Amino acid sequence: MRPKIYLFGDSITEESFSFADGGWGASLVHHFSRTVDVVVRGYSGYNTRWALIALDKVFPPPEKEAPVAVTVFFGANDACLPDRSCAFQHVPIDEYKNNLSSIVSFLKIFVGFQKRWPGTNIILITPPPIDEDGRLLHPYVENASGLPERTNEAAGAYANACVAIARQCGILVVDLWTKMQEFPGWQKAYLSDGLHLTQGGNRIVFEEVIAKLREAGLSLETLPVDLPRFDQIDYNDPVKAFEY
Amino acid sequence: MRPKIYLFGDSITEESFSFADGGWGASLVHHFSRTVDVVVRGYSGYNTRWALIALDKVFPPPEKEAPVAVTVFFGANDACLPDRSCAFQHVPIDEYKNNLSSIVSFLKIFVGFQKRWPGTNIILITPPPIDEDGRLLHPYVENASGLPERTNEAAGAYANACVAIARQCGILVVDLWTKMQEFPGWQKAYLSDGLHLTQGGNRIVFEEVIAKLREAGLSLETLPVDLPRFDQIDYNDPVKAFEY
Repeated sequence: MRPKIYLFGDSITEESFSFADGGWGASLVHHFSRTVDVVVRGYSGYNTRWALIALDKVFPPPEKEAPVAVTVFFGANDACLPDRSCAFQHVPIDEYKNNLSSIVSFLKIFVGFQKRWPGTNIILITPPPIDEDGRLLHPYVENASGLPERTNEAAGAYANACVAIARQCGILVVDLWTKMQEFPGWQKAYLSDGLHLTQGGNRIVFEEVIAKLREAGLSLETLPVDLPRFDQIDYNDPVKAFEY
Repeated sequence: MRPKIYLFGDSITEESFSFADGGWGASLVHHFSRTVDVVVRGYSGYNTRWALIALDKVFPPPEKEAPVAVTVFFGANDACLPDRSCAFQHVPIDEYKNNLSSIVSFLKIFVGFQKRWPGTNIILITPPPIDEDGRLLHPYVENASGLPERTNEAAGAYANACVAIARQCGILVVDLWTKMQEFPGWQKAYLSDGLHLTQGGNRIVFEEVIAKLREAGLSLETLPVDLPRFDQIDYNDPVKAFEY
């Protein structure tokens, strides 16, 4: 059977198959056609606290086949400010770090006294930058304060914390917060409502994720193709191509 | 774990996650967000003869969890004419019928003396109509004959055969060949090269498939959502929402 890649995250993962936005999840399936199965586990609105509670309902038990990779893409909700309109989603930054670390441990290291999936490549993805004007124009909950519920500065602090946890755990990380801001006009080019991704924003996530997968040795050059290509089938003796 | 829907077919299935074309597979994932997993098993160029040989490498063994639905979407290659440039893909219409019937049997009825997945909903999809001008403009292999390797008449015969097999097996069918031709201008509106789907063509497949799934009782109204929605989580006592 084909190896699996899990996409675990919040709405930016849940919505990653919208073709109108050129979703990064759908692009991964298209890119890795015939080589991997992509399993979407995006949960809109979730922070790492809720993700951690949900973990053993999200992933199969340890004895099941290990996925080859898991993207862990949280922080956009944790980084909601504690005194603004989405305070109920806020998670303090130290807890965010601990939660990310616990998610990595759950997947790779220990279940009781057993290793779970030590060979699985985990890729952390930092929250994207925040376009505060966009957030004020497109509030998700009533917000008469005139102040955005998320700021780019707070998102940056969580992004740095995410990168630090990745270094500490020795795993791969996409620093999306930094990467996106390398491009002038990122606010509108990559973010549709100040937080969620446009087609351009999805393109960056897709490209960064396939670059990290490549670093982990997972690419179209290394992954076997499921079943012979049709031009490898001898139409006078088709069974031969399937005997392996 | 979430129930699975398998998409089994040729290139029209393999390419169903291209966002440029609004792929029908990606649209299914987006539509059934948080309710089902979509597993793509599209094999470009395959006819039912090769699909039948490959079956036990495509689907998990009978003791594995039964998928809730499988789309079986073949015929576009079987219907290549036997005396034209893609003759190597041609499968005679009687063999096509037998092969489709055998695929249904493999999935539902018998493995040795065991039933495999009797409760799985199988949806046959007929080949799309053929725009012969489009096929001459976009040949897949050298074709100096001036004659298309597929005709709409032949595709229609295979589509009728597919519908007949569905009736005989008592399973659902999307008659794509007939459905698309209800719309004036279908040739260019739905087909990009006389065979493969434009965004409009993908839209029709998506809508027809979700309509058939609904007939089978599979819809957003009936499928349970994976994990509580974030507005159902009490942020003062988040564990409670996950105790079920």
